[in-house]
Amino acid sequence: MSLQRLQALRALMSSQRPVLAAYIIPTADAHNSEYIDAADARREWISAFTGSAGTAVVTSSQALVWTDGRYYTQFEREVDLSAWTLMKQTLPDTPTLEKWLASNLKDGDVVGVDPQTMTRDEWTPIQTALKKISAQLVPISNNLVDDVRIELGDPAPKRSHNELAPLHVRYTGRTAGEKIAELRRKMAEKKASALVLTALDDIAYTLNLRGSDIEYNPVFFSYLIVMETNVVLYWGDGQLPPSVTDHLREEGVDSVEGKPYGDILEGLKEMARELSESGDGRHVIWLSNDANEAIHRAASGSDVLKRPIDLISEVSPVKLAKLVKNEIELQGFRNCHIKDGIAVVRFFRWLHDQIDSGEQITEVQASDKLLEFRRDEKDFMGPSFGTIAGSGANGAIIHYSPDREGQQTVIERDHMFLLDSGGQYRDGTTDITRTRHMSGNPTAEQKDAFTRVLKGQIMIGSALFPKGVKGNVLDSFARHALWEVGLDYGHGTGHGVGHYLNVHEGPSGVSWRPYPDDPGLNVGQILSNEPGFYKVGEYGIRHEDLIEIVAVDKGSDHPKAKNLRGDYDGRGVLGFSTLTLVPNQRECIDAEIMTDFEISYVNAYHRRVLDTLSPILKERGLLKDLEWLEGQCIPITRK
Amino acid sequence: MSLQRLQALRALMSSQRPVLAAYIIPTADAHNSEYIDAADARREWISAFTGSAGTAVVTSSQALVWTDGRYYTQFEREVDLSAWTLMKQTLPDTPTLEKWLASNLKDGDVVGVDPQTMTRDEWTPIQTALKKISAQLVPISNNLVDDVRIELGDPAPKRSHNELAPLHVRYTGRTAGEKIAELRRKMAEKKASALVLTALDDIAYTLNLRGSDIEYNPVFFSYLIVMETNVVLYWGDGQLPPSVTDHLREEGVDSVEGKPYGDILEGLKEMARELSESGDGRHVIWLSNDANEAIHRAASGSDVLKRPIDLISEVSPVKLAKLVKNEIELQGFRNCHIKDGIAVVRFFRWLHDQIDSGEQITEVQASDKLLEFRRDEKDFMGPSFGTIAGSGANGAIIHYSPDREGQQTVIERDHMFLLDSGGQYRDGTTDITRTRHMSGNPTAEQKDAFTRVLKGQIMIGSALFPKGVKGNVLDSFARHALWEVGLDYGHGTGHGVGHYLNVHEGPSGVSWRPYPDDPGLNVGQILSNEPGFYKVGEYGIRHEDLIEIVAVDKGSDHPKAKNLRGDYDGRGVLGFSTLTLVPNQRECIDAEIMTDFEISYVNAYHRRVLDTLSPILKERGLLKDLEWLEGQCIPITRK
Repeated sequence: MSLQRLQALRALMSSQRPVLAAYIIPTADAHNSEYIDAADARREWISAFTGSAGTAVVTSSQALVWTDGRYYTQFEREVDLSAWTLMKQTLPDTPTLEKWLASNLKDGDVVGVDPQTMTRDEWTPIQTALKKISAQLVPISNNLVDDVRIELGDPAPKRSHNELAPLHVRYTGRTAGEKIAELRRKMAEKKASALVLTALDDIAYTLNLRGSDIEYNPVFFSYLIVMETNVVLYWGDGQLPPSVTDHLREEGVDSVEGKPYGDILEGLKEMARELSESGDGRHVIWLSNDANEAIHRAASGSDVLKRPIDLISEVSPVKLAKLVKNEIELQGFRNCHIKDGIAVVRFFRWLHDQIDSGEQITEVQASDKLLEFRRDEKDFMGPSFGTIAGSGANGAIIHYSPDREGQQTVIERDHMFLLDSGGQYRDGTTDITRTRHMSGNPTAEQKDAFTRVLKGQIMIGSALFPKGVKGNVLDSFARHALWEVGLDYGHGTGHGVGHYLNVHEGPSGVSWRPYPDDPGLNVGQILSNEPGFYKVGEYGIRHEDLIEIVAVDKGSDHPKAKNLRGDYDGRGVLGFSTLTLVPNQRECIDAEIMTDFEISYVNAYHRRVLDTLSPILKERGLLKDLEWLEGQCIPITRK
Repeated sequence: MSLQRLQALRALMSSQRPVLAAYIIPTADAHNSEYIDAADARREWISAFTGSAGTAVVTSSQALVWTDGRYYTQFEREVDLSAWTLMKQTLPDTPTLEKWLASNLKDGDVVGVDPQTMTRDEWTPIQTALKKISAQLVPISNNLVDDVRIELGDPAPKRSHNELAPLHVRYTGRTAGEKIAELRRKMAEKKASALVLTALDDIAYTLNLRGSDIEYNPVFFSYLIVMETNVVLYWGDGQLPPSVTDHLREEGVDSVEGKPYGDILEGLKEMARELSESGDGRHVIWLSNDANEAIHRAASGSDVLKRPIDLISEVSPVKLAKLVKNEIELQGFRNCHIKDGIAVVRFFRWLHDQIDSGEQITEVQASDKLLEFRRDEKDFMGPSFGTIAGSGANGAIIHYSPDREGQQTVIERDHMFLLDSGGQYRDGTTDITRTRHMSGNPTAEQKDAFTRVLKGQIMIGSALFPKGVKGNVLDSFARHALWEVGLDYGHGTGHGVGHYLNVHEGPSGVSWRPYPDDPGLNVGQILSNEPGFYKVGEYGIRHEDLIEIVAVDKGSDHPKAKNLRGDYDGRGVLGFSTLTLVPNQRECIDAEIMTDFEISYVNAYHRRVLDTLSPILKERGLLKDLEWLEGQCIPITRK
């Protein structure tokens, strides 16, 4: 089937004028989203490879996918290897996509790509590499994979434009009007006549609207242009329902114009032309640097104007605004983590009970049961990502998700069980991983690894650091206890989290990888704190909390506050407060390799979990859960 | 005087065709050297500002210097503030040079710069910013400051082309012939017809020659072009003395052509033309990405060819080669650190004796005495940088160097005294900082800070980490114990060190600042390990060792080797071995805030210092020094 699809695509490439020597199929949708809707899953359809990252290149004789180490095994399982070649991009000897093109194409060759599926930052190096061999990269405005799908009678599903739900200011803390006024202040500083928002979470945040067009992410397909006096929302057929216009009016946004989602490129060209012809001097349009190439071209008017409009292409001001949560959002985060703690505690009590009494519980059944418990909580809207429930060896697969079809894995009593899950609540988003040994009898090696991962999490959780440093500088703290014995983990330590928005939110993170747009850590940011250790074929361990950045001074309620004798020469002291409220399994902690500080840190955390959750469990009459939780929170001690 | 110079420069700017609206005067010489010879000190001459970093811009009405926080006070002391404006580039509100130009110039304006004083990486963003406002950046091939100096009767001193000294293979471990053969292999991989070396230490390393054209750095003004079958050295008047040609022949480099240093740009253009006309296909020339704009233009033939030659502009293969020391170089490093340890131990014994007996010793006298002790050591060639001898408050000035003129500072008995110094030896380069309280009675606060800096140094020195990580990931380890109490230091933690070459050597380093060309840490690299703490107006503390990267496994002689139970999934385990051999002052160490591991680490280090140095002191009959050293190395304990 893959071969038939490839042949049809190659025929279409040959029929283009000029003929395409190669066609690139990136993973991205037009909004550079992390989660891709079925309507946009072109790389997946053409190659059958379902991984979340990868770029396909098709020439008349070859078909290749560049992807990273997380997906090598999966690729070889899913893809027809007689037709497709895997390019292992994390190996040093693998040429980059642009180098491969430059050495496999010849003078005059033309490479095509749908410019809506590639950011300008990706476009430019490929274009430069091709220019060097006198070949060129050209934008092909209709997507050839979409065309092939129609031709083969398997058209892409229609893009959803589901109902929009206003999110009340009691959850968001700031009205859309206030947010837009702030954007206009930033635009004035940059002398920008228009700000074009393309990232779906940027738009949902700005308008205090939520949608359901993409699984797990409460966003909606749209574009938003903010100008000095009006706002244009490209959505659906352009008819904004009264619920939306009323909401925006109530929030102080008066002049909102709706336009059809599909008209964005024409709309931008028209805007560029109008600004160019307005005669009142030079105009600047502000785009996010992750806006796609087609958006960049249209906004500059490069196809229609002799002298294109100047663009500012840098991190969107909305990304920087929503990075720092306001007090209402923070209260929501704290509150939804109490609810989420109740759900996860109830789940683990249930799971241990089931397994102890000899029931066979599969990973999928466990995930479903966890969802049931979360559904009992107020304002719960759905999972924030696909639950990773990995028993035994499955726990070592970092991007594992149990399959509902085929053979089911039972959570065995003598297994380590890794559970990474989260919820969307109207008042915030959760993301928690706990790892438990189902009989409470880990091996000495498992106990050592569990404890070292925990030491790493504590070294982050208890760290003090100067305001404004990038998240990168903290990453090694999480690895120190593992590195000491030759262990490590192959993923970052922390990501930002949206407020009832995407569970992975930029532009900050805690990793050895650079985060070029990280403006420096500041009070009110939310990060995950999730070191791990994975023994392939045996077990996986990850401890994940969400943490809130707080200012710390001598009087703060922070375990290191009393020792402070400086504030980094006026820069200010930051630390973390842990939002997640679920204990770590005592039986897996080896107090012998922990410092006094670490032991008291864990005990204080467990005390706080118990103090926070027990009144609620009592009030709801969940006395068995309460009893279980009390047992989990007994202080740990050295022998 | 500054005003007269400025007026003359402005007159010259007006007489250019086209007239220059602004002229940029960077600090760099044509080789992007860190230390600048008097012949190249143009920014210093025009502005009177002597700091090591900064860029001047002169327009018809304004004169500005962009520099960083290390130099604000110095700038205001040195510069005529009625003529010059300080642009504090580390403040967030200060516009960058290109932004300032873009908002202070107008359509059609022309900005000039000597293209030999600016790397392409600096050139491009300025050019881009100016294009946006329809202004342009143009290369002015004669340096206008040099012209003004002649006009005002104060011509720049002549550039030195001092004698070249071959460095024997018993010091270098690899012949020039072997090094060039390796470069040719790398060139073949990149299909490069020529490699143009412009960094002076790259050239000295490749040819196993040393010079003395720049203070402290044993390098010589030159350019080197490596081609498939021959090598061209641009040096002096182009006449290579027999001592040099003989040396190169002995080292397997047969066809070496000498050309005059000043002919480099013409030579490159000529080469570009020849390659372009050779008719045997496309040619590529490889430049270092820190080669200047003039070199880039000449090598591509952009002024003379219709279709310029393709350039590879990336980190030079020599930088990557000399980063990893060979076994002979490593033995030399270990050996010269023993000699340097003897000299520094003798110095501190002498200094304490003098001060204890009531002598008035100034910082300059101390520096001179230290040099005397180093001169007693075999193969000592001179200091590796200007000694930083800072007593009391002077120790808190990170780039302090005691002035020989004017009021001298006496090292007081109740002061902390910070001494950062190093030596060039034929077998290696040293760089050591020790901080001592001259009466051994630090305040509790000083003792706490001294110990926390030491804890940071130990956390780096004892770290284990995966092969291939960038030095950046280690930086926060050095700060952890300081951050815990709200303290920090405003410089990086470690820099690379050349082998009898520049004391600061790229492209790796340990810092929060990105090192884009760091290829990842590997066995055989040398780094400094130098956390600090500075209390402005009172005292400074820095502990600096040089450390060698070593592979560690379960059987290694490393304090953490025995606990290893993995090798990071095959990546390999790296750690450090400390080269520097001088004790830290026991009286300043507070064992109460150290862990058991840290205490035994310090005691093991002091044991090693004593075991290594005492036989030599004994053999030389330096028994008073030996006695003093024994006292310094008595194990520390908790109360």
